[in-house]
Amino acid sequence: MRHIKGQGAFKRRGLMLVLSSPSGAGKTTIAREILNRDPNLVMSISATTRSIRPGEIEGKDYYFIDKKDFEARINSDNFIEYARVFDNYYGTPKDPVEKAMSAGHDILFDIDWQGTQQLVSKQNIMQDVVTIFILPPNVSELERRLKNRAQDSLAVVKHRMSKVSDELSHYPEYQYVIVNSEIRDSVDQVEQILSAERCKIERQIGLHDFVQNLRNLS
Amino acid sequence: MRHIKGQGAFKRRGLMLVLSSPSGAGKTTIAREILNRDPNLVMSISATTRSIRPGEIEGKDYYFIDKKDFEARINSDNFIEYARVFDNYYGTPKDPVEKAMSAGHDILFDIDWQGTQQLVSKQNIMQDVVTIFILPPNVSELERRLKNRAQDSLAVVKHRMSKVSDELSHYPEYQYVIVNSEIRDSVDQVEQILSAERCKIERQIGLHDFVQNLRNLS
Repeated sequence: MRHIKGQGAFKRRGLMLVLSSPSGAGKTTIAREILNRDPNLVMSISATTRSIRPGEIEGKDYYFIDKKDFEARINSDNFIEYARVFDNYYGTPKDPVEKAMSAGHDILFDIDWQGTQQLVSKQNIMQDVVTIFILPPNVSELERRLKNRAQDSLAVVKHRMSKVSDELSHYPEYQYVIVNSEIRDSVDQVEQILSAERCKIERQIGLHDFVQNLRNLS
Repeated sequence: MRHIKGQGAFKRRGLMLVLSSPSGAGKTTIAREILNRDPNLVMSISATTRSIRPGEIEGKDYYFIDKKDFEARINSDNFIEYARVFDNYYGTPKDPVEKAMSAGHDILFDIDWQGTQQLVSKQNIMQDVVTIFILPPNVSELERRLKNRAQDSLAVVKHRMSKVSDELSHYPEYQYVIVNSEIRDSVDQVEQILSAERCKIERQIGLHDFVQNLRNLS
């Protein structure tokens, strides 16, 4: 496991690293790889009202809660972001994220543009959010991936294509854009963004005392 | 020579990478190393009114121009930043920088907080500027370096110390802060910041057409 730079000599506030992309751009693979590389980065765990499936673990894959509980938590502003997909809710509970960030951990979010919009719209956390949009490398690769997945009806293919176009249209809302030609290069780029963001002045909360100490001497 | 990531598939606008630090923090070594690593990064060349010294090369070390010419260029807003040090002027001419950035090159500036303030105050270039402040690793190392350099009078030592304290006080005006414990780690961090900044959406000026192309298909 490689050591990721940017772990300073003093206390640092964690950040929220958001990866979004149209389906098939390789985001899930990139997310898994970057989690493997960096022990300080943890995956955000969502809450959901859908039923637990065989093999899934409560508190690892999801927090499984019932609909009434979920709606009560929406009302008490307990989610950083949430969405209703057909009959089920999905959302990111606030407390574990805040706790991890205060301890200096960074949290990875694999969410779409709608979740990202919710995240960056919140005054009190927007400065903690780092957003990356991942693009497929070219038209032919995108076409190949869309068709490979679509051994379904023409209607399903068309729906998927129009959804990809919608998702692509939201790239300007992100801070960074990576074109995923080679998974390895893309993971390197995410790593570099993470390392750079850790050097941002506003995340290094021990900095003021550190510099004060240097100034007292000189 | 290692390849620095972040050179995208399409046209990118260059950026201005500013390194500042109090004297003795290792900035010059870091600047030399990062220039060695990255063929796309070029050093900014200043103009000066001081006399050329033996071994110096016009257009490589400095652009040597006379005082009258320098002042005329100040009046026609020809410098990105400039300063008068005793009887001589030093400044960064605009044209070569603009030309290099348009061609997608990044430019390294080894300037102090006063030059940096001039750079980031300019509306039309502030979005191109990436600023890094380099700190010495601890008090005892700073002390050692200040004393090592000071085989001069007590007055000179005191002057230098108070200057370092002044310089340190300007760290909050920078975007990134690096604590230079190990030169190699610090160069890595500068490299990561450079790579990350190249992935910033506003620098990838070919992005709109690229995504439009993907969307047309899907």
